[in-house]
Amino acid sequence: MQLDPRVEAAVEASKRETLRSLQELCRQPSVSAQDLGVKECSRLLESMMKEAGLKTRIVTEHGGQPIVYGERWEPGARKTVLFYNHYDVQPPEPLDEWKSGPFDPQIRDGFLYARGASDNKGNIIARLQSLKTLIGVDGKLPLNVKFLAEGEEEVGSPYLYRFVEKNPALLKADGCLWEGASSDAKGRPVIALGAKGMVYIELRAKGPNVDMHSSYSTLIENPGWRLVEALGSIRDKDGRVLVDGFYGDVEQPSSDEIKYLKEMPFDEETILKKTYGVSRFAKNLSGLEAKLEHFFRPTCNIAGVNSGYTGIGSKTVLPKSAFAKIDLRMVPRQKPDKILEAFRSHLRAKGYGDFEFLVESSYEAARTPMSDPIVKVVRETAKDIYGVEPVVHPSMAGSGPMYLFVNRLKIPTASIGIGHFGSKIHAPNENIRVEDLHRGTRYIVELMRRMAHS
Amino acid sequence: MQLDPRVEAAVEASKRETLRSLQELCRQPSVSAQDLGVKECSRLLESMMKEAGLKTRIVTEHGGQPIVYGERWEPGARKTVLFYNHYDVQPPEPLDEWKSGPFDPQIRDGFLYARGASDNKGNIIARLQSLKTLIGVDGKLPLNVKFLAEGEEEVGSPYLYRFVEKNPALLKADGCLWEGASSDAKGRPVIALGAKGMVYIELRAKGPNVDMHSSYSTLIENPGWRLVEALGSIRDKDGRVLVDGFYGDVEQPSSDEIKYLKEMPFDEETILKKTYGVSRFAKNLSGLEAKLEHFFRPTCNIAGVNSGYTGIGSKTVLPKSAFAKIDLRMVPRQKPDKILEAFRSHLRAKGYGDFEFLVESSYEAARTPMSDPIVKVVRETAKDIYGVEPVVHPSMAGSGPMYLFVNRLKIPTASIGIGHFGSKIHAPNENIRVEDLHRGTRYIVELMRRMAHS
Repeated sequence: MQLDPRVEAAVEASKRETLRSLQELCRQPSVSAQDLGVKECSRLLESMMKEAGLKTRIVTEHGGQPIVYGERWEPGARKTVLFYNHYDVQPPEPLDEWKSGPFDPQIRDGFLYARGASDNKGNIIARLQSLKTLIGVDGKLPLNVKFLAEGEEEVGSPYLYRFVEKNPALLKADGCLWEGASSDAKGRPVIALGAKGMVYIELRAKGPNVDMHSSYSTLIENPGWRLVEALGSIRDKDGRVLVDGFYGDVEQPSSDEIKYLKEMPFDEETILKKTYGVSRFAKNLSGLEAKLEHFFRPTCNIAGVNSGYTGIGSKTVLPKSAFAKIDLRMVPRQKPDKILEAFRSHLRAKGYGDFEFLVESSYEAARTPMSDPIVKVVRETAKDIYGVEPVVHPSMAGSGPMYLFVNRLKIPTASIGIGHFGSKIHAPNENIRVEDLHRGTRYIVELMRRMAHS
Repeated sequence: MQLDPRVEAAVEASKRETLRSLQELCRQPSVSAQDLGVKECSRLLESMMKEAGLKTRIVTEHGGQPIVYGERWEPGARKTVLFYNHYDVQPPEPLDEWKSGPFDPQIRDGFLYARGASDNKGNIIARLQSLKTLIGVDGKLPLNVKFLAEGEEEVGSPYLYRFVEKNPALLKADGCLWEGASSDAKGRPVIALGAKGMVYIELRAKGPNVDMHSSYSTLIENPGWRLVEALGSIRDKDGRVLVDGFYGDVEQPSSDEIKYLKEMPFDEETILKKTYGVSRFAKNLSGLEAKLEHFFRPTCNIAGVNSGYTGIGSKTVLPKSAFAKIDLRMVPRQKPDKILEAFRSHLRAKGYGDFEFLVESSYEAARTPMSDPIVKVVRETAKDIYGVEPVVHPSMAGSGPMYLFVNRLKIPTASIGIGHFGSKIHAPNENIRVEDLHRGTRYIVELMRRMAHS
């Protein structure tokens, strides 16, 4: 499709400015897990949102990290779009695996490397740039815009619900464009219609009151052993979670969804393995079963475990403590509170009731049906901008507080974004293809125009 | 008993000098696991050994960290004593739990705090000071002295055997005083007649070639899970090792040993729990069973385990790797090579044959029988110096390369030392009671005199 040449020219003319803005935003650390730079980043983002023509304010009354909220009302506009984004990022560790500093955005071979380059600062910049572009070209936007960027998505959005549930009128919209998505392994744009929920637990086992000489392991129970054994009781060897009730509420895919999944491209099956250097999938999954597992089933992941001496060489110590961080990604109908209670009961029953059990986040899943009108608009726009049929995923495999908007506010929601298959979000050397930043700007411009008249 | 007043006066007069020497030695890091300062420490120790009247040399031809060896032949002496020591120390981590720096020896309330203060630099200084004292008082030593200080005991003495096995004549002695022991929970001096062996393994599990977003845990196996499950397969919940053959060669205590153990004081049973803040022993052990476990049975300890994100807060990552460090303390008749092969087979059989399996150290146990004449001399001397009946342990619960001297060179060996029950060896805030340093000097002086005529 031929895009509006004035839009093309505007995007082209502002390429350097767009890239500079993204570098500026990435240079500002905003690691919510470590409370590093988050407030500073909220102020920087607010100034950028103002420049993009939004009337902004910084929200703090919900008690969490600042939410940067902006809006623009267009006289006569019939529709309203809500953008959901987050300006916080994942911790950059392990630092020694970055080729350039995580907060020192560098361009190499057409890719920009920085923590947040894709998740989610690149998407924020593309979206703000699309507002600027439209205002520049048309003098106005085709619809009302609400732009919400939170500062603690990466730690499970623990307080966002207080803001959303208190402000349903403020946030009312005809559709929501969620924070991001990456093109798939073959370069097709992905549209994701849901997000898994998230339960994040930290388990802490305590032993003696000080690290001891390990010769005492004859008499003193080692909390590292107890933690390892407790974790070992959570899954069977095939990865099936053994916690009673874990799968009880899982929504089973409909026959339509299974039919859709069967036909849905999923080249990840070969390309994932190649990219990440693994010879087989867990449980030897393939085909439909791999798709079902990825999009329709919950996970239980050890995100971190630590005890004792972990430096080089050998130290013979009986550690005083041990901890593990576990993330569970929920699917629709699973209830986080029920799952948490199931884990607590499991640990009690197995003899680990003395562990500290910290809940870092806890929220449910959300999905917008494939039949919702928003899907057609986004799909057609993607096809026209990218020149290939996009792939619609019934849900992300990832998580986000989408339930607040979809389940509570009833806003149809689609996640689209500028990442690519190798963007390495959450990992060292996170990156985007610079050209994808600019194409993403065009995509949002066109999408706003079409949503205005849908 | 009244000690030789000239010895008393000499020990008293050199207290400040003795303490300064220990502070100087502790100030020099010598962390073999991290190859930190070991060579520098060997040179410092050599100069101290020279000052104590020994003819020294630094041995490097065995290929490991330097061995500092010194000897002094006394014309007409009938007996020879060998001192075994080590000048390397355990890693000081976790650093934030030290009240003063691990290599900044500080005295508080009569205790000297530093890594190595007890294990083993305090013992080295007491022994060297006893040589100085005797030479000062008598103009000579009552017996020939061989003084060996190795630089990698804390990493399992991987190369010491090459030196010992090639130099049986050089190291020939009538008795060996091993590196150290601590007084027990009631302050009674401990004499330990054996050392457990040591097998130290590091297991490494590999997953994808980069840390991934944990949403992929649907499809990509998490090496953290695999490691945890592999470790979980090694023990049952009571701590019994499930690796086939692990207990097969364990030497069972004789009825005499059981009789002795029944009567042996072991106040650790209450005091250990109190000191280390634990409410019960592993497996609810007590009485004879606790003593048997501590002195006569092998251990399998997780000294460290690590995977993924271990910082503050939450990060949702599927880690690319995971590792665990395991120390196994062997008892007599267990064969390290056989045990290693048993662990390898176990892991293969359980489906973890792909793990990297690194052997950091591997050596057997040793014991000198309670009936050996050296025991009587050391016991009587300890009683006279400390004014209480010492406690003879059939073995340390700890390890050391004692087998080289006892099993290979057939030298009767007793371990004695200046540590106290709360010395926190291998842990933060390692310390000795300053007065124990000086009492230890007197103890060795008297012991050398008696061994010369035994």
